[in-house]
Amino acid sequence: VSVAIVGAGPGDPKLVTVRALELIRECEVLVYDRLVAQELVAEAAHAACISRDGMTQDEINELLVRYGRRGRRVVRLKGGDPFVFGRGAEEIEALVAAGIAYEVVPGLSTFTALPGLAGIPLTHREIAGRVTVVTGTNADGSDLDWEHLGATPGTLVVFMGLARLEEIADNLMLAGRRADEGAAVVSRLSWPDAEVRTATLETIGAAARGMRGPAVVVVGDVALHANRLFSLAAA
Amino acid sequence: VSVAIVGAGPGDPKLVTVRALELIRECEVLVYDRLVAQELVAEAAHAACISRDGMTQDEINELLVRYGRRGRRVVRLKGGDPFVFGRGAEEIEALVAAGIAYEVVPGLSTFTALPGLAGIPLTHREIAGRVTVVTGTNADGSDLDWEHLGATPGTLVVFMGLARLEEIADNLMLAGRRADEGAAVVSRLSWPDAEVRTATLETIGAAARGMRGPAVVVVGDVALHANRLFSLAAA
Repeated sequence: VSVAIVGAGPGDPKLVTVRALELIRECEVLVYDRLVAQELVAEAAHAACISRDGMTQDEINELLVRYGRRGRRVVRLKGGDPFVFGRGAEEIEALVAAGIAYEVVPGLSTFTALPGLAGIPLTHREIAGRVTVVTGTNADGSDLDWEHLGATPGTLVVFMGLARLEEIADNLMLAGRRADEGAAVVSRLSWPDAEVRTATLETIGAAARGMRGPAVVVVGDVALHANRLFSLAAA
Repeated sequence: VSVAIVGAGPGDPKLVTVRALELIRECEVLVYDRLVAQELVAEAAHAACISRDGMTQDEINELLVRYGRRGRRVVRLKGGDPFVFGRGAEEIEALVAAGIAYEVVPGLSTFTALPGLAGIPLTHREIAGRVTVVTGTNADGSDLDWEHLGATPGTLVVFMGLARLEEIADNLMLAGRRADEGAAVVSRLSWPDAEVRTATLETIGAAARGMRGPAVVVVGDVALHANRLFSLAAA
């Protein structure tokens, strides 16, 4: 296998998998995202390290194919998981089209880390038995199906929703979700400057002002419930 | 911190996080699930290793509290992620009630690993912009909201759905999902005997006969689309 598509996890370099670290240490070329921890990039001691900052997706694909063709051990290190609203599939399609062998190493998604690190259980026996995950910025520019999301029971997780938070909250309330329903914004999960703010759907827009990305928005009463455990743990 | 609630990931011992492995190697007491890889249990070289097989959740909670009170370094190692339909929250509630300091280390959920390891992208620009996650066996015994799930667009992931697969498929079709919609069952993801079978919603019940758990059911045309990449990768 020449090219490995590897998830770096949410941020904390110790939340990378053992297999990912092994591949990073052995690779000859590392192509990494801006949000990947510097400690992980530093582990690629023998590699040419290339930041993908400023590259288009096509340029990244070309880079992977070019080094893959030469049989170099390439690691494409992506923030979070390569496929949870990442674009890992496009990179794989390019490799497959070029006939290059690849390996995938999944990473911890922010989605998965929310309960343990932010104290927000996405499901709860008494509150929510169902989780819906969407992205706040559709790749094709189309809007979310607010009417259906408003009527969907359980917890709603919105990736990349911070920039449009007030619009998202307004649309959900217009579509029938309660104004006093719990909501939370979790920014920079697992980083030293991680932050969790909880409020109601009506007040979350104001509460989250000034927060920095990457951030995930959680809508649902689990946000209120869980905060109790998180506060206790942090105390 | 005395007690760590740690996710072991989907099965492959190399898909555990660096932090998890560190804690396993240092711990004095390891309480582990049946589905955790033996290689990981073996890493706890200096620990008393206790299988939770046959214990009730209350008994596990008591065990964690008992060793935690004595200040022992305890790792509670759980399959997948402790909180994605796991019962990590109950263990934390018991620790909090007893005033014992704890740490959480998230694990790779099968949910997150599906795209990379089974070749099923849960979202896709042209097919599905939304993922719904439910468990096939509700803790409180109540049934799923079939009518709403049937009308929900995008990909549906059902944890622990294999045992009730035909019932799940029938109910979704009755609720309006297409009989020729894609469906897949992924069993023992990341283990050497992992298996992915794809079919349509109408035929998945027959196609999945004989498969062993743990398994996840995916309903949506992403199942059909993605199989192409997976086959190519495996070839």
